[in-house]
Amino acid sequence: MEEGIIEFSDWIKLDLRVGKILSIEDIDGADKLYKLDIDIGEESPRTLVAGLKPYYEKTELQDKYCIVFTNLKPRTMKGIESHGMLLAASNNDKKKVVLLAPETEIEPGSRVS
Amino acid sequence: MEEGIIEFSDWIKLDLRVGKILSIEDIDGADKLYKLDIDIGEESPRTLVAGLKPYYEKTELQDKYCIVFTNLKPRTMKGIESHGMLLAASNNDKKKVVLLAPETEIEPGSRVS
Repeated sequence: MEEGIIEFSDWIKLDLRVGKILSIEDIDGADKLYKLDIDIGEESPRTLVAGLKPYYEKTELQDKYCIVFTNLKPRTMKGIESHGMLLAASNNDKKKVVLLAPETEIEPGSRVS
Repeated sequence: MEEGIIEFSDWIKLDLRVGKILSIEDIDGADKLYKLDIDIGEESPRTLVAGLKPYYEKTELQDKYCIVFTNLKPRTMKGIESHGMLLAASNNDKKKVVLLAPETEIEPGSRVS
């Protein structure tokens, strides 16, 4: 494989889905993290931990559409298992962090390709 | 590696960037494709071929922010080399295809993580 180049066959292993944020909670002892429950079209919402607290108020995130990388290996942060990752764009100095979203409404669980 | 699970070290190999669509052209003999020039914060715009014609008018795409997968292996479609892929969400029956975008403005070239 050419250095730094990704084959399409590797890209399609990633499962990226449209999600809708159902609830947002602070986490004891965490300045930067929220615990989020997100509808990604599955029977139960996904629980994720995301470092959005410096960038978003809880009220701004409520019911917001987002993009969830669903098959990232789960990891535990502050005792909470995070089942996926929210995609966000950040500028060079990381002063600005902005969630990705579908640019118009589409149902949670819709796949990104 | 567990089946279907992606390690973080594989995820970070992907280079996803915020882009801004500068121009949109039809392609001779292609019903579904547009040729797009996109500012992704590089010296020159990237040329991409994307199957958006059934879903977007050209005027809707002009100056739109989008997400470009920049280090996908280039491929040639209808004689035009496409240097990356625009990310979009589609529902189950593929009747609806919606571009991903940053949910508020952030400069082209901003990295997704």
